[in-house]
Formats: sequence, C-alpha cells, structure tokens
Amino acid sequence: MTWDALETPYLRVDRPRFDANIKRLNCHLSALKTPLRPHVKTLKSLPAVKAIFNGGTGPITVSTLKEADFFAEHGFLDQIYAVGIVQNKLPHVKRLIEQGVDLKIILESETQALQVVEFCRMHDIVIPVLIEIDCDGSRAGLTAESPTLMDVSKILAQAELFKGILLHAGGSYGCMTRSDKVAAAENERATAVYVKERLELAGIDCPMVSIGSTPTAHFAQDLTGVTEVRAGVYTFFDLVMANINVCSLDDIALSVVTTVIGVKPEKGWILIDAGWMALSRDRGTASQAVDYGYGMVLDGAGRPLTDWIVESTSQEHGVIKQRAGSSEIPSDVQIGDKLRILPNHACATASQFDKYYVADAEGQLSEQWSRFNFW
Amino acid sequence: MTWDALETPYLRVDRPRFDANIKRLNCHLSALKTPLRPHVKTLKSLPAVKAIFNGGTGPITVSTLKEADFFAEHGFLDQIYAVGIVQNKLPHVKRLIEQGVDLKIILESETQALQVVEFCRMHDIVIPVLIEIDCDGSRAGLTAESPTLMDVSKILAQAELFKGILLHAGGSYGCMTRSDKVAAAENERATAVYVKERLELAGIDCPMVSIGSTPTAHFAQDLTGVTEVRAGVYTFFDLVMANINVCSLDDIALSVVTTVIGVKPEKGWILIDAGWMALSRDRGTASQAVDYGYGMVLDGAGRPLTDWIVESTSQEHGVIKQRAGSSEIPSDVQIGDKLRILPNHACATASQFDKYYVADAEGQLSEQWSRFNFW
Repeated sequence: MTWDALETPYLRVDRPRFDANIKRLNCHLSALKTPLRPHVKTLKSLPAVKAIFNGGTGPITVSTLKEADFFAEHGFLDQIYAVGIVQNKLPHVKRLIEQGVDLKIILESETQALQVVEFCRMHDIVIPVLIEIDCDGSRAGLTAESPTLMDVSKILAQAELFKGILLHAGGSYGCMTRSDKVAAAENERATAVYVKERLELAGIDCPMVSIGSTPTAHFAQDLTGVTEVRAGVYTFFDLVMANINVCSLDDIALSVVTTVIGVKPEKGWILIDAGWMALSRDRGTASQAVDYGYGMVLDGAGRPLTDWIVESTSQEHGVIKQRAGSSEIPSDVQIGDKLRILPNHACATASQFDKYYVADAEGQLSEQWSRFNFW
Repeated sequence: MTWDALETPYLRVDRPRFDANIKRLNCHLSALKTPLRPHVKTLKSLPAVKAIFNGGTGPITVSTLKEADFFAEHGFLDQIYAVGIVQNKLPHVKRLIEQGVDLKIILESETQALQVVEFCRMHDIVIPVLIEIDCDGSRAGLTAESPTLMDVSKILAQAELFKGILLHAGGSYGCMTRSDKVAAAENERATAVYVKERLELAGIDCPMVSIGSTPTAHFAQDLTGVTEVRAGVYTFFDLVMANINVCSLDDIALSVVTTVIGVKPEKGWILIDAGWMALSRDRGTASQAVDYGYGMVLDGAGRPLTDWIVESTSQEHGVIKQRAGSSEIPSDVQIGDKLRILPNHACATASQFDKYYVADAEGQLSEQWSRFNFW
C-alpha cells in the first residue's frame, strides 16, 4: 500500500511525533511519580491506545460505554467512565461489571447517588463511584465547599460504593502562559487534596484522587496526594494546544490529507475535497491568539504554506485562503495536488474518520489503524 | 423496543414530519414538471432514501464514492457524484461504471478534463461528465461567461464524454425573504439555460441541466430548460433553514435526545450528556437572525423550552442556558430528565450517528434505520 493509492480525504498520523508526544508526558509524570490514565476518547483505536502502553494494557478513561465495551474486550479492565451517570446507562454498566471490568462511574448529585445505590441494591452488585469535583467553574462537578458533597459522599460510603474523587481543570484551556498553566495545575491538585482531607475528616475514606487535563498534566510541578492523572489529546496535539503553548506546531501528529479540486486566482481561493465532514466543524482557534479557520495548510511534503488556512467549509468542499495580506495563490499549487490540513481540535477531526493511516520515520505509509465512533 | 430502553444520546426522526417534507417538495416540483434528484448526503440510509421514492429507487446525487457504492448495491444506478473529480478517485469511478452504474462526475478545469479524457482512453471506458457552473460566486464552478468553459466543454465533447452542466445556488442560504429566494432560484435557472444555449450555439449538445439547493428548489416558480433539481437537507430541515424561512420550526424532523446529568441553578446551567460528538460543532445559526447556539431545546415531549439553547459543548457534555434574560432554570427540569435538541444543520448532526430511531404518528418508536459515514 502506498500513499498514492489512497483516495482523499484521509487521516494521517506521523508516528515519530505521536511516539514523542506519548514519551514526553510519560517522562513528566514518571518524574512526578504519578501514573497516567489516558483518555481514549481522542484515539478510539486499539493499536493507537496500545502504543501508549508499549503494546500492553493499562488503566484508561472512556467517554462512552461503547469505548468501555471495546477496550474491555481487548483486555483493558481498569476504566473510568468520565461522564455523569444517568439511569438509562446503569444496565449497561452492570453488564460491564459482570464481565469483570473494574469500571468506575462518576456523578455529582444526591439524585444520581440515590439512583445508583438503589440500582446496586436491587441487582446485588457493586458499582464503584467517584464524585466529580469542580475546581474552576468550567463545567461539571460539585465545588470543594459544597454542602451537597458531604451528603452525596455519605450516601455512597454507607452503601460501600464510594471510591474517590475526579477533577478536570477545563479552565486550563484558557491559560496562555507557563505560569498560568502551572497555577491551574496546582489549583487542580490542591482542590483535590483539600476535598480528600475534608472527606477523611468526616470519616470517609477516599482512595482515588483522579485529576487531569492535557495542559495541567504537562505543567504540574507537584502531584502530592494525587493517585492518577488523566489526559487525552496529548498524543496527537492540535492547533488549539499549540495556541496555548502546550506544544509546538511541529508536535502535531495528525493531519487530513486532501486534494486540490479547484484554483480560483481571481478570488484568491483554492478548493479542496475536504469539507467539514473531514475537518469537523470545530472552530476552537476562533477565540484564540491565532485563528486557523478550519485548519492550517501544509503542502504535500508537510511544509507550512505560511498564513494559508481553510477559511470556509461545506460538507465535502473546503475553501483555502490566505489569512491576511496578499491573495496571490502560491504558483506551485495546481489542481490535483495533495495538501495536508492540521486540525484545530484533534478529538473532533479524528472522530470524522474510521481509520488512521500511519507514516513512519521516513514518511512512508507503514500501518492502518482502524478506529470507531458513536455510542 | 421502547424509547425508555435506549441509552442517550440518540437520534430521533419524526416520521410524519419527514414524510410531509418529502411530499412538499415532490408536489412543488411535480407542478413544475421537473424531476427531483435528491442528494443522499444528508440521510446516508437505505430506508430513509427509499422513503423518498415510495419504496423504490430513483436518480440520486452523492457526495462520496462510498455513498455511490452503497446505493448502487441497493439498485440506485442513476447517480451524480457532485464533488469535483481528482485522479486518485478515477479507478473507483471506473469500478462503479463497470458494475453498471450510470455515474456522472463533475469538474471545472482543463486539467481535470484532460486527465479524465486520458484515463478513459487508456482504460477504454466512458465516464459521463458534467461541467460545474458557478451562478452566484458562492463556491465551485466556472462562470457563465468564462472562456475556459468553452475549452473544457470542447475537450469533453470531442472525447464524447460531455453530458451537461451542474449548478448549485449556495448563495441562496443567505436569502431571508421570499422574493430573494425566488430571485435566487430564477438566477440559478437562467444561468443554467444561458450556458446551455451558449454551448449549443458552439455546436455542443447539452442534454443534462442539473440545478438545485434546498432554498431554490422550494422557491423556484419556473424550471423551463432545467432537466432536474437537486436538494438534500429538505427531508429533515433544521434551524438554519427555519432561520431563512424555508421551513418552520415545526417542520424539523430530526432531534438529538439527551439526558440531564447536572443542574446548576447558581449558574443558570443544565448539563446534558450530548456534547459536540452528538450535536456536531456546527454553528450555522451563529451568523443568522436567531442564534441557537449548538441547538434549540425541547422538553421530552417535544415542547419548546422557550429561549433555552445549548450554549457550549465539550466532547460528551453540553451546557444548556437561557439565551437572554432570566437564568432561572425551569423548575420541572431534573437530573435524569430527557430533553430533545433541534439541530442547527441536520447534515452535520445526522453524520455524528450510525442510526436513526423513528417515531410514528403517535410518537411511538416504530423503526430503526441504520446509516453510514466516512469515505
């Protein structure tokens, strides 16, 4: 199989960058003596996730019960399902636990806690539960000082379902400077440790303290009191992460390969056969320091076409334009040429495809990794 | 199977609305004595597309060669692949034609025309070609007055590959008023007829004149000279189409069903288990008269929660907020409740799923339609 035989658009992974990204976070967390529980929501692919564990299996975080099913079948038995649980998913959770999966679920309310306790009582099973804690107001969870936190933990502890706490410093995606990211990481850790101590003072044991986001995982200076770190997009990285200086553009391991289907010098446009169906509609860089439209453009050999971005998309068409200044189309761009587009958000772009084509250190097509989607 | 047994998020189709939308466009085009060639890129599902043809097969438009393969297997042999062709896809086109598919391709340059002619000569096959014409500057195609148009059509005609022209009035998506949409439709038709006459004056026969977009298809008053009309999103409709008054909110046949996983009165937030992975990242209403965020919120019974929208999303989480004014959360929204989200753009939202769950006239779960994605 060669690159030339592939129909565009397709998804390319640069293996040396992918491996280097994995190594970077592993090294950092090893030095801090804290294990990683990678979030497989980005990759959703067996060979890709196995690469994180050197071919083995290890603790993972999942964003859907379909991920839980798939990775359980392939030997990944230590899992956290990191989306607040609801009743319609409890029978599925039960099936997984009965298959031998050590699946932890998360929740943030008395209602959910009472439903889980009642479900476990009725079916005579144990579903280990983490309480989600909010450390920066960015999304879900109970605040560290919340009175509800004590009520919920007691309900779960009494039923012997309480396993610990989970935090996600989503606010760190807005941190531009190194010191801001270091502070966000320390805030995530300190909040976690504070909550753990509050629970222990009330006589509630809190064995698991799970924290993480890609920015805080890379910039944490101390992880005392934390039992594990989660991160997802770090294996591929993307323009959003480059914009907040968690990685450089050269670290981005994922790109969409596309073909030029039209050149319109009078408009300064290049038309490509990658629209939002391939690139995703993610505009994560729109509110950042550098807006990359629907993605930054590289030539077929991976060299940046400086300042050229995918400016607009329809389902299977993309329009490339120069961001600023000249609208003169690079004279060497012709109909039929291949280009590569770096993604704003690797999780979103990867989810538009059912496979990855992997380039080795020489840039040769070496492997095809299938991935899955949906619920 | 009942709705209660389904895990959220899932995709719901309201069959009476879907059928009414199909009937509306069929009636309109019948009255104008012009056949429809529906664009199956929205549905990508056999039972859904068969419903358009009363259970039969008919002429279709496809956006990927995977759609071409799938629908050919199921008897849909008259197809247009409506994305500008490139060389890496010609072997696939050849396979389809050799299987008996009457597959028309499109292009807009001498380079593409010469490549197709050479490919056909080498492989001794006929690939019928339409030239893409630009009627409103919105995306691809040659303008009606373009000198290149005559060169390209001659290259194709000489090789006996030229079949006609294809236009898409993408600019009609910006037409708010009825008269603007009527004018866009007439411009699309008149441009097509002008080009056809220009070609015929040069001695080039132009049997196919294919035009269409969902707004112009519904607002065309006359289709003289046009041989067929294309439209895609009209079967489901969506908030983008409602915003430009092509349909009403009550016509939208597609919604994402989700469960409340958190209620934060202090922030005026409702958290749901549908993030961008379910809703898509499409923000098509952002630049329209009414911005619906990532979608408009209905209660479980389908009644609008007036002014509540999905304000932000992460992969598997959505944050619902009231658009304006009060942030008081409706007192009857509780953790565990089901809500429905109307999509900004039905093509994008549907593509996040691999199946549709179909509600009959009584709102009961009556069918499951599988759909496919990717290339």
